[in-house]
Amino acid sequence: MHAVPHATPDSDDLRRLYAHVRGRSLALAAPLSAEDAMVQSMADASPAKWHLAHTTWFLERFVLARRPGYAPFAPEWDVLLNSYYQSVGPMHARPRRGQLSRPSLEAVRDYRHEIDTRIQARFAADDLDDAARRHLLLALQHEQQHQELLLTDIKHAFWCNPLQPAYRDDLPHPHGRIHPQSWIDVDEAIVDIGAPPWPGEDGFAYDNESPRHRVLVPAHALAARPVSNGEYRGFVEDGGYREAAHWLSDGWATVQAQGWTRPLYWHEDLVHAHTLGGRRPLDPAAPVCHLSYYEAEAFARWAGARLPTEFEWERAAAALGPPHGHFADDDVLEPQADATQSDGASATGMPVQLFGDVWEWTSSAYGPWPGYAPWSGSIGEYNGKFMVGQWVLRGGSCATARGHIRATYRTFFPPDARWQFAGVRLAHDR
Amino acid sequence: MHAVPHATPDSDDLRRLYAHVRGRSLALAAPLSAEDAMVQSMADASPAKWHLAHTTWFLERFVLARRPGYAPFAPEWDVLLNSYYQSVGPMHARPRRGQLSRPSLEAVRDYRHEIDTRIQARFAADDLDDAARRHLLLALQHEQQHQELLLTDIKHAFWCNPLQPAYRDDLPHPHGRIHPQSWIDVDEAIVDIGAPPWPGEDGFAYDNESPRHRVLVPAHALAARPVSNGEYRGFVEDGGYREAAHWLSDGWATVQAQGWTRPLYWHEDLVHAHTLGGRRPLDPAAPVCHLSYYEAEAFARWAGARLPTEFEWERAAAALGPPHGHFADDDVLEPQADATQSDGASATGMPVQLFGDVWEWTSSAYGPWPGYAPWSGSIGEYNGKFMVGQWVLRGGSCATARGHIRATYRTFFPPDARWQFAGVRLAHDR
Amino acid sequence: MHAVPHATPDSDDLRRLYAHVRGRSLALAAPLSAEDAMVQSMADASPAKWHLAHTTWFLERFVLARRPGYAPFAPEWDVLLNSYYQSVGPMHARPRRGQLSRPSLEAVRDYRHEIDTRIQARFAADDLDDAARRHLLLALQHEQQHQELLLTDIKHAFWCNPLQPAYRDDLPHPHGRIHPQSWIDVDEAIVDIGAPPWPGEDGFAYDNESPRHRVLVPAHALAARPVSNGEYRGFVEDGGYREAAHWLSDGWATVQAQGWTRPLYWHEDLVHAHTLGGRRPLDPAAPVCHLSYYEAEAFARWAGARLPTEFEWERAAAALGPPHGHFADDDVLEPQADATQSDGASATGMPVQLFGDVWEWTSSAYGPWPGYAPWSGSIGEYNGKFMVGQWVLRGGSCATARGHIRATYRTFFPPDARWQFAGVRLAHDR
Amino acid sequence: MHAVPHATPDSDDLRRLYAHVRGRSLALAAPLSAEDAMVQSMADASPAKWHLAHTTWFLERFVLARRPGYAPFAPEWDVLLNSYYQSVGPMHARPRRGQLSRPSLEAVRDYRHEIDTRIQARFAADDLDDAARRHLLLALQHEQQHQELLLTDIKHAFWCNPLQPAYRDDLPHPHGRIHPQSWIDVDEAIVDIGAPPWPGEDGFAYDNESPRHRVLVPAHALAARPVSNGEYRGFVEDGGYREAAHWLSDGWATVQAQGWTRPLYWHEDLVHAHTLGGRRPLDPAAPVCHLSYYEAEAFARWAGARLPTEFEWERAAAALGPPHGHFADDDVLEPQADATQSDGASATGMPVQLFGDVWEWTSSAYGPWPGYAPWSGSIGEYNGKFMVGQWVLRGGSCATARGHIRATYRTFFPPDARWQFAGVRLAHDR
Repeated sequence: MHAVPHATPDSDDLRRLYAHVRGRSLALAAPLSAEDAMVQSMADASPAKWHLAHTTWFLERFVLARRPGYAPFAPEWDVLLNSYYQSVGPMHARPRRGQLSRPSLEAVRDYRHEIDTRIQARFAADDLDDAARRHLLLALQHEQQHQELLLTDIKHAFWCNPLQPAYRDDLPHPHGRIHPQSWIDVDEAIVDIGAPPWPGEDGFAYDNESPRHRVLVPAHALAARPVSNGEYRGFVEDGGYREAAHWLSDGWATVQAQGWTRPLYWHEDLVHAHTLGGRRPLDPAAPVCHLSYYEAEAFARWAGARLPTEFEWERAAAALGPPHGHFADDDVLEPQADATQSDGASATGMPVQLFGDVWEWTSSAYGPWPGYAPWSGSIGEYNGKFMVGQWVLRGGSCATARGHIRATYRTFFPPDARWQFAGVRLAHDR
Repeated sequence: MHAVPHATPDSDDLRRLYAHVRGRSLALAAPLSAEDAMVQSMADASPAKWHLAHTTWFLERFVLARRPGYAPFAPEWDVLLNSYYQSVGPMHARPRRGQLSRPSLEAVRDYRHEIDTRIQARFAADDLDDAARRHLLLALQHEQQHQELLLTDIKHAFWCNPLQPAYRDDLPHPHGRIHPQSWIDVDEAIVDIGAPPWPGEDGFAYDNESPRHRVLVPAHALAARPVSNGEYRGFVEDGGYREAAHWLSDGWATVQAQGWTRPLYWHEDLVHAHTLGGRRPLDPAAPVCHLSYYEAEAFARWAGARLPTEFEWERAAAALGPPHGHFADDDVLEPQADATQSDGASATGMPVQLFGDVWEWTSSAYGPWPGYAPWSGSIGEYNGKFMVGQWVLRGGSCATARGHIRATYRTFFPPDARWQFAGVRLAHDR
Repeated sequence: MHAVPHATPDSDDLRRLYAHVRGRSLALAAPLSAEDAMVQSMADASPAKWHLAHTTWFLERFVLARRPGYAPFAPEWDVLLNSYYQSVGPMHARPRRGQLSRPSLEAVRDYRHEIDTRIQARFAADDLDDAARRHLLLALQHEQQHQELLLTDIKHAFWCNPLQPAYRDDLPHPHGRIHPQSWIDVDEAIVDIGAPPWPGEDGFAYDNESPRHRVLVPAHALAARPVSNGEYRGFVEDGGYREAAHWLSDGWATVQAQGWTRPLYWHEDLVHAHTLGGRRPLDPAAPVCHLSYYEAEAFARWAGARLPTEFEWERAAAALGPPHGHFADDDVLEPQADATQSDGASATGMPVQLFGDVWEWTSSAYGPWPGYAPWSGSIGEYNGKFMVGQWVLRGGSCATARGHIRATYRTFFPPDARWQFAGVRLAHDR
Repeated sequence: MHAVPHATPDSDDLRRLYAHVRGRSLALAAPLSAEDAMVQSMADASPAKWHLAHTTWFLERFVLARRPGYAPFAPEWDVLLNSYYQSVGPMHARPRRGQLSRPSLEAVRDYRHEIDTRIQARFAADDLDDAARRHLLLALQHEQQHQELLLTDIKHAFWCNPLQPAYRDDLPHPHGRIHPQSWIDVDEAIVDIGAPPWPGEDGFAYDNESPRHRVLVPAHALAARPVSNGEYRGFVEDGGYREAAHWLSDGWATVQAQGWTRPLYWHEDLVHAHTLGGRRPLDPAAPVCHLSYYEAEAFARWAGARLPTEFEWERAAAALGPPHGHFADDDVLEPQADATQSDGASATGMPVQLFGDVWEWTSSAYGPWPGYAPWSGSIGEYNGKFMVGQWVLRGGSCATARGHIRATYRTFFPPDARWQFAGVRLAHDR
């Protein structure tokens, strides 16, 4: 595994990371035909081709085009490839990205190649100042985020096709053993939450992870591992989707309006599911995923527990040291039961699987840390303007790039979003 | 030009027609990449790939599969390629056809090739009975209809892409001369409308053209030629889209809700328009097109006239003999001014351009002729079940296959549809 | 029964009609509380209070305000009481009429009283010229139309209230006998359709009934009486609402989207229905009503028949002489079986119940007669601008004012409208 | 002013409170006609009649009907008057409450009278046990909440009527003086947030205010007073509603979709507004209100500040002692400038107007306190099930009943809600 450069990395580290990340995007798209790469199955998702092009545009716009007089590769593409930067200019309607046959996938690959060439020329000429290197690092973090979206979006796209093709035929499908849930008691404490502002002396962090600040975390208990498919099936079979009492009011309204009866991608037999490897048997021991916030929260209530706050989660994660777990680089692309779990969480007293496998819904609405300030310039629109109506998930998933995640990392989705690899870890008050 | 076989054609004629029509579909799709062929820019349109596949499925289903024991090429595609035949089985939601990357365009071409091979084997073995030959002829008529849709749908798709690519770069763009409108007075008469039921002694006709029956057509005057771009621009410049008094109530509501200010595809400068050859100058002498019924009707009111009934139109067309005009085979793919018009319609006393160039909206709601009976079997769903809420257009367009149209031919669209090559010819009461 | 004044009536006749119609509106509203009179249960319906006020505004606007210098009663109400006259000025959104607590029902009654006083003063002073008398007559016809809407709208409003109150507790509920359906054969003929333009030598007619013109009506057979509740129940019990083959494509889409399983107002037991007298047993012998066009058309197909054209209907009705039947003045307010039917339609060779009981859907789209010209001025918006997307019904209903209907009378509704007293009479080709 | 009974009040206190609260509801409805009391101008609002009836049903259901064998006044009304208690039974669709003419306002008044009589009989017989007294107290708190909604809902209803009537003609409209904004510096501290669970030794609190728990509040500065109309007008005139950079992404989407250009109820001249006293001049010194969360947050960003958290707010409020301010009982029903402000907030070092005048949006998403448990039984649905997608407001308004509010009180609305008396107080990080 490559070393993740920290802070403003030196050029060699950055160059290696550049090659790795950019190559990884192409590898993820390799199983897709030009037609596959164009599908947009819902407004929230984007075509793979768009991910490939947008991440390149981001690089060009925020690294190369910083230099006065830069001649853009294709200025007429700005409107197509701008995602949401109001300060950059107008943008094509998001729900219509799947209607763009032009530029072609081949043209997008050419675009990637040309921008890579230009960036590499800048590396070769040692012609990237600190600011450029920082924006380059940010662009690579940004591309890793889109790599995960590429996977979740194509998973949804193939599920929508009645032929339900597989994205890859060569994925393993391990079945694991599961141990009884156990609980880790945690006392009240003031803890440091968040990361120092980047760039600084420490490694990369998004603006929404900063500043580091003190939070009083109350006494609570945290589940040692995520909820499994088998446990969640118990909720389904107990009539969980038919009983209003388990649900938040908005959640119940959504269940009824959308006709939800089980997690997204589960077959109606409750023992198979659509995966990136096609339809497969569900592993009862593996963490359940593709849950909305509503479902995670309802399951927790049914189970007599609650979701953890993001402070509780981060406190536990921060104690673990560098993130270990199942990530996209492992080429499984489905959550797995934890092989190390035989030791038992209670033995070590530490939770397992906080990182990787499934993002974990927290009960925390996505908002700013005290003293939060967005980055300056157009990239200030990266995170801050979404701080309403979304809920925080932590820890990364089996579709997250290894090295991309950390204890302070916050992602966020609306409470009805299901197409991410999102699961649930329980907590309770003491 | 090939001879159109009539009635139940003999096998040689049919074989020639088969080769011509099937080849023509491939030729129309030739300028398109696999990605282009997948775009669906609105619910009413379909991807080119779908047109290629659905027409082949129609052939397979209604010709080859009539024989007991027939092994379908890909039975799992039924749900994807069934357009609206409730009696055949379930169908994929029409607005989601653009999300189907599989089967690929290449797989669809293979499908076409295989079905062509199977059909040709049947020809070679002289193994097509009357019923099979009739269904084959119908399938080819059906395919010609989809050829026109392929063109109108890709025109819309490319217009929706901010890059507004051209479907073809080699299209001519003739500019013509126009002569003053003149009117042809017609006296009251009982006329025969419609075609004898097919199959019978006469040539092919859809079920909605039959039976032939008597209609009393009142005295009226019919415009010698369609309304031109230049004339329609007068309506726009006179504030036609801002004055409720010109419009039907539903039309005015649509103008306001959709923000219509000019025909679809016209540039806001009123002198350019999007075409299958990209953005081009409008020819003021050419027939205006891409009008909805609402716009055609509003223009007529503004001009102190009205739309003709389909009886008035058919009476005039029936007097002309075999259809002549500008069709898709002419490879212009935009309406043109009439070169023969220098003689003046009033000289011959006959209207010009009834066939080809632009479909002409009539004031007639689409309904059954007295004594109408749909075909038996699943193909009975072809026309009859749409007989509410649609209005009749007549005459074919520059995107219609030559030989496909006739005086009794009726097509139909909802009154807000604009993406067809639909124009307007005026009439008035006497 | 009052005499219906014809043409431009003399002042005495008109005065009597005025008193009758205006009083009748108040009588129809008498069972309603101020709250009842404010309910708007769907966008297509209006509150009873609005009907009372709008009809008075129509009178004031188009009769009294014709005189220069006229001081309107409440000019600030124009925006509230204008229904759809774009040329008169802006209007309150139709779906929000039920949110208007002001003006109060009491204020509306005062308004009616004041306008009545002003009109009567004009009568007393013999101060109404021909044009004013014509507009007055039109305003009274208009008010009769709204009387029917008042009844259908309150019927719907009370049905939407879970308490399902009765509009009146004193309505009779006759149960009748029914005779087997019989068919009247009619030969092809050229017939005169429509009424001479009003005002002229003949009686009142709306502009959409004129001009009188010749139509060739083909040979056909017309059912002697409307379809009964019992017969329609046969369609329901035969699975009529579950079989796509019976339905027009738009109709089937509506059945599925709306979950229709029976006529509006029928209880799920199929033997009771909501009426203006509350929930009551259905009379199997009475004409079925509250059908949409889609349902009427589907029933006809199921029955092996079709709907009549409006020409076929008018030809039959014109032969009957002055309209007889069950009208709103009979104070039953539900369709009844025909008492005279014991003679049998075939005996007299004439159809029964063409007038009254239920409006009869025809297969004719609502459009202009040849030579049609709307009235001049703002009242030209009365009928003509609705001539797209609606279907014609004929004959009036049990909620129509006696004297309001005639053989040439055309009403029209969109094909999914169900809340009118709309039923079905069958026809077939010969 | 009456004394607010605390904890489980003794019967005399409770009886006085009962008479006060129940009488107050009738007084608030007194200016309304039966028609006014039926208006529902949007799905979020309810008719005044419904508020009167629902609060009575709540009393009957949760106090009287606790006793076995209780005979309900009108069991058929359950479906109409149940707001959202899934465990109680089905409910009439909220957006259709305005279509209920029955029961009449008079019948609802009779219902209130009858239930009051039954409750008073229970008081007289000293026949209310602890549990009944607690539920009675809760029902009165509940009714006070609906009193505020009655006012905000009728304000919206009258604004939707083009006649824009006044709810009352006798309201004063004081214009005040304003002092420059000042900021109160607050240091980091661990503070106690929330109230002990009720019932207990302390006074009434909703379940969502409990349990009391420790929170680390960071150093910050809090504005001494709310933002004024004059200050907010500066934002409007600076183009605040036209510049995306000020807005959260969802906020900007709402501004564009809804066409917002100023606070709800402001006239386009920016110096008048619709009030419960009709259209009146805006007092530039009075707190701005009828803002959504999006607008409050955008204003704060424009002003270089942020919204306070609910912890920051509660910490300041808890230091003030019993709530003082302008409440509904003052019969002004619009926010007023603070008369005591001449002392200057900086002089006392304490913020003013935390209570009354306007609810203050906080940056806190509405969620549970650590250890939160909803009440048991159906009333457990009161607060907890709304803990997603809503934001917390604090402090009460000019439409809140005096005595109803406290420092720990939390209300909540979705971020686009504007029809409450919701304003904004600024904060900033230090």
